[in-house]
Amino acid sequence: MKWTFRKLLLLVILLQATVQAFSANATWIWYPGDYELWLGNNLQNRRTERGTFFPPFWKMDSHYSLVEFSTDLNLAEQETITICAEGRYNVKLDGKFYPGMPDNVLLPAGKHSLNIKVFCLDRVPALYVQGKTVATGSQWKATFEDKEWIDASGRTSGKSGTIYRHAGSWNFNTSSALPSAYKLPVSPMAAVSMEPKGKGMLVDFGKETMGFPLFQGVEGKGWIRIYYGESAEEATDTLHCETTDQIQVTAPVAKLQVNDSKAYRYLYIETDGGATFKQISMLYEFAPVTERGSFRCSDTLLNRIWDVSDYTLHLTTREFFIDGIKRDRWVWSGDAYQSYLMNYYLFFDSPTVERTIQLLRGKDPVTSHINTIMDYTFYWFLSLSDYYLYTGDKTFIEQLYPRMESMMQFVLSRRNSRGLLEGLPGDWVFIDWTDKEMSKQGEVSFEQLLYCRSLETMAECAGLVGKPADQARYEALAASVKHILLNEFWDQSRQAFVHNKVNGQSDGVVTRYTNMFAIFFNYLTDKQKEAVKTHVILNDSIMKISTPYMRFYELEAMCTMGETDYVLNEMRHYWGGMLKAGATSFWEKYNPEETGVQHLAMYQRPYGKSLCHAWGASPVYLLGKYFLGVKPVAPGYSRFEIRPELGDLNWLKGSVPTPNGQIKVYANARTIKVSASEGEGYLYFKAAKKPKASTGMIEKMASGDFRLLVKGDGQEIVVTR
Amino acid sequence: MKWTFRKLLLLVILLQATVQAFSANATWIWYPGDYELWLGNNLQNRRTERGTFFPPFWKMDSHYSLVEFSTDLNLAEQETITICAEGRYNVKLDGKFYPGMPDNVLLPAGKHSLNIKVFCLDRVPALYVQGKTVATGSQWKATFEDKEWIDASGRTSGKSGTIYRHAGSWNFNTSSALPSAYKLPVSPMAAVSMEPKGKGMLVDFGKETMGFPLFQGVEGKGWIRIYYGESAEEATDTLHCETTDQIQVTAPVAKLQVNDSKAYRYLYIETDGGATFKQISMLYEFAPVTERGSFRCSDTLLNRIWDVSDYTLHLTTREFFIDGIKRDRWVWSGDAYQSYLMNYYLFFDSPTVERTIQLLRGKDPVTSHINTIMDYTFYWFLSLSDYYLYTGDKTFIEQLYPRMESMMQFVLSRRNSRGLLEGLPGDWVFIDWTDKEMSKQGEVSFEQLLYCRSLETMAECAGLVGKPADQARYEALAASVKHILLNEFWDQSRQAFVHNKVNGQSDGVVTRYTNMFAIFFNYLTDKQKEAVKTHVILNDSIMKISTPYMRFYELEAMCTMGETDYVLNEMRHYWGGMLKAGATSFWEKYNPEETGVQHLAMYQRPYGKSLCHAWGASPVYLLGKYFLGVKPVAPGYSRFEIRPELGDLNWLKGSVPTPNGQIKVYANARTIKVSASEGEGYLYFKAAKKPKASTGMIEKMASGDFRLLVKGDGQEIVVTR
Repeated sequence: MKWTFRKLLLLVILLQATVQAFSANATWIWYPGDYELWLGNNLQNRRTERGTFFPPFWKMDSHYSLVEFSTDLNLAEQETITICAEGRYNVKLDGKFYPGMPDNVLLPAGKHSLNIKVFCLDRVPALYVQGKTVATGSQWKATFEDKEWIDASGRTSGKSGTIYRHAGSWNFNTSSALPSAYKLPVSPMAAVSMEPKGKGMLVDFGKETMGFPLFQGVEGKGWIRIYYGESAEEATDTLHCETTDQIQVTAPVAKLQVNDSKAYRYLYIETDGGATFKQISMLYEFAPVTERGSFRCSDTLLNRIWDVSDYTLHLTTREFFIDGIKRDRWVWSGDAYQSYLMNYYLFFDSPTVERTIQLLRGKDPVTSHINTIMDYTFYWFLSLSDYYLYTGDKTFIEQLYPRMESMMQFVLSRRNSRGLLEGLPGDWVFIDWTDKEMSKQGEVSFEQLLYCRSLETMAECAGLVGKPADQARYEALAASVKHILLNEFWDQSRQAFVHNKVNGQSDGVVTRYTNMFAIFFNYLTDKQKEAVKTHVILNDSIMKISTPYMRFYELEAMCTMGETDYVLNEMRHYWGGMLKAGATSFWEKYNPEETGVQHLAMYQRPYGKSLCHAWGASPVYLLGKYFLGVKPVAPGYSRFEIRPELGDLNWLKGSVPTPNGQIKVYANARTIKVSASEGEGYLYFKAAKKPKASTGMIEKMASGDFRLLVKGDGQEIVVTR
Repeated sequence: MKWTFRKLLLLVILLQATVQAFSANATWIWYPGDYELWLGNNLQNRRTERGTFFPPFWKMDSHYSLVEFSTDLNLAEQETITICAEGRYNVKLDGKFYPGMPDNVLLPAGKHSLNIKVFCLDRVPALYVQGKTVATGSQWKATFEDKEWIDASGRTSGKSGTIYRHAGSWNFNTSSALPSAYKLPVSPMAAVSMEPKGKGMLVDFGKETMGFPLFQGVEGKGWIRIYYGESAEEATDTLHCETTDQIQVTAPVAKLQVNDSKAYRYLYIETDGGATFKQISMLYEFAPVTERGSFRCSDTLLNRIWDVSDYTLHLTTREFFIDGIKRDRWVWSGDAYQSYLMNYYLFFDSPTVERTIQLLRGKDPVTSHINTIMDYTFYWFLSLSDYYLYTGDKTFIEQLYPRMESMMQFVLSRRNSRGLLEGLPGDWVFIDWTDKEMSKQGEVSFEQLLYCRSLETMAECAGLVGKPADQARYEALAASVKHILLNEFWDQSRQAFVHNKVNGQSDGVVTRYTNMFAIFFNYLTDKQKEAVKTHVILNDSIMKISTPYMRFYELEAMCTMGETDYVLNEMRHYWGGMLKAGATSFWEKYNPEETGVQHLAMYQRPYGKSLCHAWGASPVYLLGKYFLGVKPVAPGYSRFEIRPELGDLNWLKGSVPTPNGQIKVYANARTIKVSASEGEGYLYFKAAKKPKASTGMIEKMASGDFRLLVKGDGQEIVVTR
């Protein structure tokens, strides 16, 4: 036999196939969304307030306890699979049981149908199957009711009405990595200072952190009392600090770790009754996500703001995106929505986005707005549109579409006679925390605006999953809400949207929310946008925003209008203000007019405020999207644009993660350098004179406006202007 | 001070009140229906087939993991309550936390609101609170979402959209009687014979039973292999018996009990590898229900039929009413429906009825017919009407009404263009097991009949819960279905309902089901009923029924037409036939034309048939309702009637349970004796000459027909005729 190139090639292909065959990689699977609910139930019920269990006040949905997983086989040769499950299970091939609860079974060659049914009450029924070519993964089907009855003849029924979904999975890729055993990783961390104080000791970890206090060399009998503080004031105020732990010592222990992780910078520790310890340190607990985005510029304050934003988001990114690490440690849709957006510019960790979206939605029937908050339902819809744009993951939209529909059905069932939404009993119309009272009565324009955008999202997703009739229906609904909004809530004399209408009447109050969102939703003409800028955003008589939450959107509106200097200065003033006040992570609320311990109080409690709140981290998003200027314009960055904006900076540089790569940007007044590792898109820039590019052809768009195609080949392009 | 009678009376009343105050009896509470689901998930997932886990193929719903229990207090003086919970909990008084997870708290005097929130994933969140006057019970409210947010001012929200329900409870009346620890009681039982057989030993317990085989004096190393048999043939056929257990012995054990209870009369036991045991007996496992009904008559065969029916129903009454004790050990709505009716004449155990009804219904959303079977959905509706009539428990209907509505909404959403129901993909149109093929295609008249009755039940319950608009809507729907049924499915030439219509056409086939049900549903004129009797029931060319399941209704139809001799003879022949064939409990199916081991086979498996099936026990119902002749005519036996029917018997006697008492009946040709301990009703009887009564006034209704008012005072009335 002569080894021709062709034969060799065939051999190589054959060998590759064999290697692949041996390396089918299994992962643990479950009913989609169920593990997320289970994990979320555990997370959200870990909150304590001064040692008292403090759970959420909305419905906790549960996993299906009995799930059937199935796959179709077409095996070239027989193979043995090993089976691991969380729960009791059975295994059927072509409708016939293998005996018992087998650890492994031999699958015959040929076409077959493999079904494994798992039952588990306390954990999520989960399955891990590994064979030579057969392996559990998201291509497996899952259902909570197979409806496979056996008729009198002993045959299973043919016609099934069963709805199968793709199995859910994450990264539990070995048989021993049980989903139910998942814990966030920890690493040891030492305190930066300790000093005696009162009857105890004040320990400072140097910055806001989260984890498990760890005592070493514990002896004697008595109590160790731990008072946690995001501030030294809070830790040492043993009667009012928000979280405490009281540990009884009855015998010597080499290492004593507190049960649940807590948020703090300071620990104030008292012992009594004879308990002593030799050392105190902690185990820092964190989400294993990677900082894939970066930002640096010529302004060190902005760099510090970016770094603290990064840290804030990392701390509040846990099993899910939570609001704050001291409290509520719950998953709130409005808060999470901002975390998603920041995440796209920092970690690009899609599994955490998916988990959070699924947990927030829960299961049918819908009995309440998400977190009971009307606006939070709408952010949930909006998050799906963003998720698709940034990740390009259509499968997730397809999997979730039925639950999007039922969620929207709930919304539609609550419309008033004008087709608009008012807060009904049980609906929390939140919008924002404000220093002065703000009406939530009647038709609040902000809610209609978000509702309209949600309908547009439904239309978009309906189109995506191939439901043109749904798409048309949602488009028509959106158009009718938008029409009312633009015609009945836009006040010509005030050149702004009014805040609300009660019984069809407005009292003329204008707030910022609807107006600023309408800018970046692009619901307004350019003239209207300018009017909003002047009459609302830059108008000090309109109630100011005192949360980073809504400052996020206010600055986003200004960004989209090109007000980069304004935005940078606001950042320096507002986020810089928190740093000046001692922040090591960004806060739930910040009113620059307050001072000292006023900054710590909220909800009528002296330390009620969360000093590490995800919504404080928006500079990560704003700097990435509007200054590095990177954003997707087609799903999953298949097309993108890069519009670097220096504002008043001498230079800036950084990278923005894309699903499987990154876009790098450097800009100063003369030079722009960009590279992208996937997709393709245009670099847009201004230049006074004719610019030059190291590669590619610069197109002139208008006087002083240019663009240049950037291919996703990782190659750096240098533009000189 | 002079002790007048009046003063003494006041003192007694005062003392009574004090005693009551100290004896507030707590019981464990939970979200209504949730414990039932949890218990049912455990029960229904215990089935094995030859050691292989064999779960149901319909949706298993789960409990809410986070539940808030609350009650309003009005305390004359302060009191301490002790708190026990299954799960993690917190305690709030007037919206303020007590610290930690307190075992007991002091409640101040006055009006207060007490809230306790419990979280538990693996068991049902449950609560037990006992104070001097405060005690958990069904008067407590429960919700799975309190929607109680805290606004910026630290206040909880005022306007709630929360739906509270009455807490669920059963009989867990001490703090240590944890609902999650519930087990059916057991009692030791010895075998009646043991004999060596083949390589092992055949053990006979003398009759069908259920429980845990118990080995004593186990020694050596090796295996004990247990083959269960409802028949000796099954037990000794080690390759085909339906259930087995294989126990590995590795060290001496004084007592070795099998893990899960099984159904059997015979055990065939083999040991190998050197394992030995000294004794084999069992622990009989049973539901702690009381035989409150009784029946005796002059025919010993009928007495034995009643006794075996009683035993069959007791065996199949477990945590819930299941179908059969060998298999499926699942809760099937059509089977349970008959158990409820029998139960009203035997145990009158309402908690088991309530549990079963709740488990069958599950939670929203409805994704399938109950047990996937269309007819089974309808029996579920019918069961509520019966439940109310027999128990008078309106609260249960009120609690369940929302889930009745959503179940009916599912049905309505599946109507065809004529407003009728056909089997859609995933729907099992069952009707009955038949020996010949029976069409399930198109509009099956039996399904329309049950659908119509279900709509009538919805109307009745809507009226009961004060929803007249719903009532009118369901009445109109029922009337329209009934109109089609009577006009389009009644075949004038055949004087019977046809079986079905496919594309509007009937092939003229007549089956018994629709026809016999229409008699006792009273949908037919007397003339039509007589025609059905002649042309269908007594017509041997119409496919015969070979399950006790449908014989139940066939005989009920004949009972309502006064065909008592026919019914008694059929009982003797059919149920007597099973006894003659060796039955010690009644079977899933019985075809008198079969012989020997043919009786054991079903589903193409030699021992597939269940020899202890609830639906075999109908004589308990028929003899109580139509021969003792006792039934309620107003809810909860507030009004009843007694129509003793001797048929060909010399005498009969017995008692029928009522919610809080019983009705006793004795009759022979000359004398009737009755007493009732609650409610009131008429005794109806025939007499050739003028009858006499020991008390009360006999009214003549028509020639030979008389009635006499019976008061619920327990006094026996003797009528001589």
